[in-house]
Amino acid sequence: MSTDFKTEVEELGKKARLASRKLASLSTLKKNKALEAIADAILESKEEIKEANRLDLAEAENNGLSSAMIDRLTLTESRIEDMAKGLVMLAGLTDPVGKIDAEFIRPNGLSIEKTRVPIGVIGIIYESRPNVTVDAAGLCLKAGNAVILRGGKEAIYSNRKLAEIMRASGTEAGLPDDFVQLIPWTDREAVNYLLRLDQYINLIIPRGGEGLIRFTVENATIPVIKHYKGVCHVYVDAEADMDMAKDIIINGKCQRPGVCNAVESVLIHKDIAAQFAPLIATELNAKGVELRGDSQFCQLVPNASQATEQDWYEEYLELILSLKIVEDIDEAITHIADYGSSHSDAIVTGDKMAAQKFKNEVDSSAVYVNASTRFTDGSMFGMGAEIGISTDRLHARGPMGLEELTTYKYVVSGTGQIRE
Amino acid sequence: MSTDFKTEVEELGKKARLASRKLASLSTLKKNKALEAIADAILESKEEIKEANRLDLAEAENNGLSSAMIDRLTLTESRIEDMAKGLVMLAGLTDPVGKIDAEFIRPNGLSIEKTRVPIGVIGIIYESRPNVTVDAAGLCLKAGNAVILRGGKEAIYSNRKLAEIMRASGTEAGLPDDFVQLIPWTDREAVNYLLRLDQYINLIIPRGGEGLIRFTVENATIPVIKHYKGVCHVYVDAEADMDMAKDIIINGKCQRPGVCNAVESVLIHKDIAAQFAPLIATELNAKGVELRGDSQFCQLVPNASQATEQDWYEEYLELILSLKIVEDIDEAITHIADYGSSHSDAIVTGDKMAAQKFKNEVDSSAVYVNASTRFTDGSMFGMGAEIGISTDRLHARGPMGLEELTTYKYVVSGTGQIRE
Repeated sequence: MSTDFKTEVEELGKKARLASRKLASLSTLKKNKALEAIADAILESKEEIKEANRLDLAEAENNGLSSAMIDRLTLTESRIEDMAKGLVMLAGLTDPVGKIDAEFIRPNGLSIEKTRVPIGVIGIIYESRPNVTVDAAGLCLKAGNAVILRGGKEAIYSNRKLAEIMRASGTEAGLPDDFVQLIPWTDREAVNYLLRLDQYINLIIPRGGEGLIRFTVENATIPVIKHYKGVCHVYVDAEADMDMAKDIIINGKCQRPGVCNAVESVLIHKDIAAQFAPLIATELNAKGVELRGDSQFCQLVPNASQATEQDWYEEYLELILSLKIVEDIDEAITHIADYGSSHSDAIVTGDKMAAQKFKNEVDSSAVYVNASTRFTDGSMFGMGAEIGISTDRLHARGPMGLEELTTYKYVVSGTGQIRE
Repeated sequence: MSTDFKTEVEELGKKARLASRKLASLSTLKKNKALEAIADAILESKEEIKEANRLDLAEAENNGLSSAMIDRLTLTESRIEDMAKGLVMLAGLTDPVGKIDAEFIRPNGLSIEKTRVPIGVIGIIYESRPNVTVDAAGLCLKAGNAVILRGGKEAIYSNRKLAEIMRASGTEAGLPDDFVQLIPWTDREAVNYLLRLDQYINLIIPRGGEGLIRFTVENATIPVIKHYKGVCHVYVDAEADMDMAKDIIINGKCQRPGVCNAVESVLIHKDIAAQFAPLIATELNAKGVELRGDSQFCQLVPNASQATEQDWYEEYLELILSLKIVEDIDEAITHIADYGSSHSDAIVTGDKMAAQKFKNEVDSSAVYVNASTRFTDGSMFGMGAEIGISTDRLHARGPMGLEELTTYKYVVSGTGQIRE
């Protein structure tokens, strides 16, 4: 007999909604104690977790998954400990719920407080890494939200086990039933229903490849926060300190090429190009970076290959870099607007006017002056933890921590005021 | 030959995107001068506007529109003046763009500023009132956004004329071409394409009936901010000042019954019901309000009719009120969560504990203690102007003013920092 996904998924939504009401007014102390209890339970269940993970790994090998995929899927002793540590760390962070963002008194004596409250019910759709199951649930819990998790089918045994442990230990520590729920079916049909449950779910966060995210946006009636990709630029201005520019580019491209805040494209002011292009090319070549330049760059650096129009849009996520010589800062800013992804973009310059212009006119979630784009990250921004990075414009941009998992309400106190 | 809506609407989107880049860094002074220039142009074009409006009114009469609809559609001398005044008022408000919400320095010396920036391109879909054309365009402009307007077909002549005047006078005052665009076709097909232009449009705000809003949510891939309805409650606690409760209920129900922050449902604590129910019934009867009560209320007030389950969900928008006797504050809070719309809900009480519980546990965009729900309004909250009210949870809740038409970016300044 086939599962009636519509009814079943709706049931998950209803339960999450009920749980979210209780979570919203749970004390910080109770939430922290629960996070610690769940961390303990995970550490105590290491063997069970590894056993469940072995079932996923066996299937992954049978299905011929790549070694990179299998690596992401694997729960080692230390990765299990990291999940537990992450929860304990969350317990130590400031609770955003109840924070008063603004407070004002109107001429009629009404006192209005703009107060942080949980978003409500959050759905997280993600791919293979099973640690997301615990990390995301912990973040949602700390911010007072109920969560519905939908992991990748490759990790279903691991995810089920982790969810089971969190639910048992969390409810024992006083959390409402269904503070976390995992969609136990791997069929995509279940996701279709989930994405349209706007009467129960308040936010969907998809984490994974562009295909997954596009599918989510196309099908959801629930608000979605996401980032498609990070095409990050470094613009080396005429007045740049060339050593600094070199360090920032090497750091951005080479320190960890596979992440969204890595640099994919470098723009060089024409006045500095004759000196800087060969210099940076030598450094990049030494690091094994393939260079794709516009024709001016290729004239200066003969071993670079010619970039195509498509290259300027590309998020390589590997040791490839596109480079372009620009006439001036305006061309750099326009290029970033035309080809960028509004993620993270940097200028290197000693000219204050140029820095100011770049800060004002480049419209990315994070705009850098004389620093590496690799800093766009919840922990680097001091948020303590991160649920993801948003290249959207509504609600949250850039790194999203606990505060971005909350919203606000207005609390208005009066002495009988009525409207004239 | 039929219009190729897909291409045409895409063209509007592209133009708006280009305009938005210029608007984002326009000075406050320039925006204010443009608002004033547009206001002048509207005043100077009164006759033209009324002439265009007469074409709409003639069609409305031919099509047998209700007199209420025709009233909403009519642009009188004073309504035209009000539109111009609204723009001048906007010129006087603080520009939210550039405001720094937070500023912090990281241990590595990076300085991070969280700065307000425009959202970008906003699409507004609305029904008959042509004044929205000017009000919405003015708000979007002041907050540095480009706007694409899609008004109702009933007002197409008026809207086209208003858009023409705004575009001519705005660009003459230095605004980029296409700072405002009106979709000139009345076909719904054009809207379908608009709602999916997520590469150019950043936010859709639908204003109108529930059908229009539902259609928007179902079809948009762009984030939508909206409110479906306002089912606002007043809970009269056991410790309520009965005179105050009476004033707040009468104000909420009768002062302007047709608006979303009007009261639709009253919950009365059982300990005060025997006294308060007859008292409020007499007052409401005198104002011509039809009462629909639960069985306990009907026992106390024989001329009330029995409420159905559906009544508790109802946004009457007229002189009808549902009333229910509750066991305690918990039942009131649960009732509001089950049947409310998360818009505006009030408690009347002298008991500080009860007030605190209600403030914490009722999750509406505005929660009131001892004040009328009618205050949920941009001008009453001191925002100066309002683009709408949100019952959503993401980005903005409650009244939305200029600040809610902006988002933020992180501006990070360093001295060459790279990530270790």
